Amino acid sequence: MDIRKRFGKKLRALREEQGWSQEEFADRAGLHRTYVSAVERGVRNPTLSVLERLAKALGVSIEEVFKGL
Amino acid sequence: MDIRKRFGKKLRALREEQGWSQEEFADRAGLHRTYVSAVERGVRNPTLSVLERLAKALGVSIEEVFKGL
Repeated sequence: MDIRKRFGKKLRALREEQGWSQEEFADRAGLHRTYVSAVERGVRNPTLSVLERLAKALGVSIEEVFKGL
Repeated sequence: MDIRKRFGKKLRALREEQGWSQEEFADRAGLHRTYVSAVERGVRNPTLSVLERLAKALGVSIEEVFKGL
């Protein structure tokens, strides 16, 4: 599975651990819901700055988001 | 320091540990030397796919690249 798909699955799992909808997660990260949805499906290629926003919204480090990927 | 600058410094340190020039690192990652130089200086915002290429060239996981950042 390519890195975008693996990352998307991991991101979705981390979001679901928080009990958040995609909309809530997107709002917390300052991103659009459709963008978060596309990242979770592995169809977007997020930049480093977006990775940081996603990790911050989840309250974890970027390292933590990539753990085990 | 913003994430691009912190990441660039870390990437440079990892490259220097290998004793590689920017050109050698870029060749191994399939990227252009000027692009690698810009990433190391924190003036580019690399995508997830590029992060994977950089980590693979270094022989480490993406998690490892972000350790301590």
